[in-house]
Amino acid sequence: MRTVHVELGERSYPIYIGSGLLPQAAAYLIKHGLSAKSPHLIVTDEKVASYHLETLQTSLEKAGFRLVVSIVKSGEGSKSLSVYEEVMTSAIQGGLDRNSSVIALGGGVVGDLAGFVAATYMRGISFIQMPTTILAHDSSVGGKVAVNHPLAKNMIGAFHQPEFVLYDLDTLTTLPPREVSAGLAEMVKHGLIKDKTFAYWCKDHAAELLALDLDALGYGLERGVAIKAEVVSQDEREGGLRAILNLGHTIGHAIEAVGGYGEFLHGEAISIGMAGSALLAEALGRGDGIYAETTSMLTALNLPVVLPPHLNEDELMAAMMHDKKFKEGTMVFVVPDSIGSVSIVKDIPQTLVRDILKQLRKGGEVHV
Amino acid sequence: MRTVHVELGERSYPIYIGSGLLPQAAAYLIKHGLSAKSPHLIVTDEKVASYHLETLQTSLEKAGFRLVVSIVKSGEGSKSLSVYEEVMTSAIQGGLDRNSSVIALGGGVVGDLAGFVAATYMRGISFIQMPTTILAHDSSVGGKVAVNHPLAKNMIGAFHQPEFVLYDLDTLTTLPPREVSAGLAEMVKHGLIKDKTFAYWCKDHAAELLALDLDALGYGLERGVAIKAEVVSQDEREGGLRAILNLGHTIGHAIEAVGGYGEFLHGEAISIGMAGSALLAEALGRGDGIYAETTSMLTALNLPVVLPPHLNEDELMAAMMHDKKFKEGTMVFVVPDSIGSVSIVKDIPQTLVRDILKQLRKGGEVHV
Repeated sequence: MRTVHVELGERSYPIYIGSGLLPQAAAYLIKHGLSAKSPHLIVTDEKVASYHLETLQTSLEKAGFRLVVSIVKSGEGSKSLSVYEEVMTSAIQGGLDRNSSVIALGGGVVGDLAGFVAATYMRGISFIQMPTTILAHDSSVGGKVAVNHPLAKNMIGAFHQPEFVLYDLDTLTTLPPREVSAGLAEMVKHGLIKDKTFAYWCKDHAAELLALDLDALGYGLERGVAIKAEVVSQDEREGGLRAILNLGHTIGHAIEAVGGYGEFLHGEAISIGMAGSALLAEALGRGDGIYAETTSMLTALNLPVVLPPHLNEDELMAAMMHDKKFKEGTMVFVVPDSIGSVSIVKDIPQTLVRDILKQLRKGGEVHV
Repeated sequence: MRTVHVELGERSYPIYIGSGLLPQAAAYLIKHGLSAKSPHLIVTDEKVASYHLETLQTSLEKAGFRLVVSIVKSGEGSKSLSVYEEVMTSAIQGGLDRNSSVIALGGGVVGDLAGFVAATYMRGISFIQMPTTILAHDSSVGGKVAVNHPLAKNMIGAFHQPEFVLYDLDTLTTLPPREVSAGLAEMVKHGLIKDKTFAYWCKDHAAELLALDLDALGYGLERGVAIKAEVVSQDEREGGLRAILNLGHTIGHAIEAVGGYGEFLHGEAISIGMAGSALLAEALGRGDGIYAETTSMLTALNLPVVLPPHLNEDELMAAMMHDKKFKEGTMVFVVPDSIGSVSIVKDIPQTLVRDILKQLRKGGEVHV
């Protein structure tokens, strides 16, 4: 088993990564001091429940934990205020008190939703993450929890750090190939922003990663989580440095919003966004050849790099203007300097962004 | 002008109390570093808007601040998730960014609602309180913000400290007498838990307080706020000591929930609750004569001390079991030892609580 420590002072927590962890879940709750006297709430989605809920319930109930279970529909649609209210109702009816915890069993959607419930139930109770997707290696570090507003993604949320993260690699074997690739987009992003060697490792081990080889996955997740943890430790509340984690996310979030949450997986959207950031880098005279390098890494992981024709440019621009990263009307992007290094560039003209969208739609081919 | 500092490390903030402060609001925003480049959201209710919104808007707009205004219905009904979502929509449509603030102009309902918006919009932006009720002297200290769930009051919330509190005593002159009394219930509560001299001062100055004499009010609010600030400074996240502030609130919240939020003002409900706590003290052999002393203080402020007959005992008990203060199924009460001192008493039998409710319904007369 691999353990990564996220250093955040009194809010520090460990991430346990390994095979066969879910059947031992109760031991981890006990180790972290969670009380069997109070009920605990498992939040999961229909798909994940069918594969893994019984394993988790069996482990916890055998150890004497009382459980309340809230199963939401699979997909981004469950990150809504109405589903949030339903989960809150389950928590209240189940008698959760201040010593209870909320356990997120699932991917990023379940983690974000359950985490926001934990952050705001009785003004905050314990939160435990049990990710079942590759993508969740990203969202399970950093304490960002949120639901979507119809007008903008992740607009309603909080910072709420988990007690611990239990990452059972065996749960990843049930992922469909498209979700595997989408998850690897965040993994390679961690290399692109901060670790050139790791970025190339992801490309070189693309076949093993796509085949869900446990050794490759274990190492990739450990390294991805560690890079993110390092950034978050230095900037828990996103005052500055942490913004580099948003590489590809400005365009990516707009693609998700305009496509309607659900058409694109988050990882697919940010893959196109990272290709866009590389085009922007070259337009700004940075990172020579970085578009070709970046897209070769992404396509090796079966990820899209071209903006689909049906996404309207004006709508994408409007969606970007709602983005949380725009302070006081200016446009700010995370732009690569080279593979493994990025900068935050302010005051980017909207006309240039429109130009990048046009190039991105043509797969960079108008790019000179 | 009187200033009380709430000491909370890097989250410390001042409370400015005085006459004529609202027309100078812009100067306070500037003093606290709020940017005129970002829009700011004023949340208020219909009643307060009709009296005070123009004064605030004029001050801020003259100084170049751009404003978004969200006016909600007056009353506890606005502390709901659906109104919360409406205010969030205004914030997004108004283009609030991370340098924006949410300004609560109103009483406890507006403060709790606006504060929860500020705590969760983009995972937390600045919050400013401008209380317009006496009751809000309590809720504006301590950073507790929340909305209600249909099953239980304040169940959904966060801790989010304001940048500053601007308490203009002139806004209190428009309060109806019933709200004046209800507000004074929290003021005298601060005396009852921690300051015998102040508790008797409230009783002795009841006539001036009820007549909204500015000197008496200014002193009473300063002292009430200071006592609460002292408690909160020692226990920001309600780990222990802070629970003493809940004197009268266990029964009080149940009265509000069973009566339907709106039938009783919060201060009225906790007044009955404090009378109940005094009965409980005597039943436990503590605080000899404290029921008579407590109720004489409350009735001097025109507050109710008798549980009305139409509130069903079983429903009150059920509502109390949802209370956040009950860990792991036991019942916990804040019980007076003497005027100016309280203890937190655990493991109180439900049968005794039922007995207290019966006595409370008869105005303590079956009490021997």
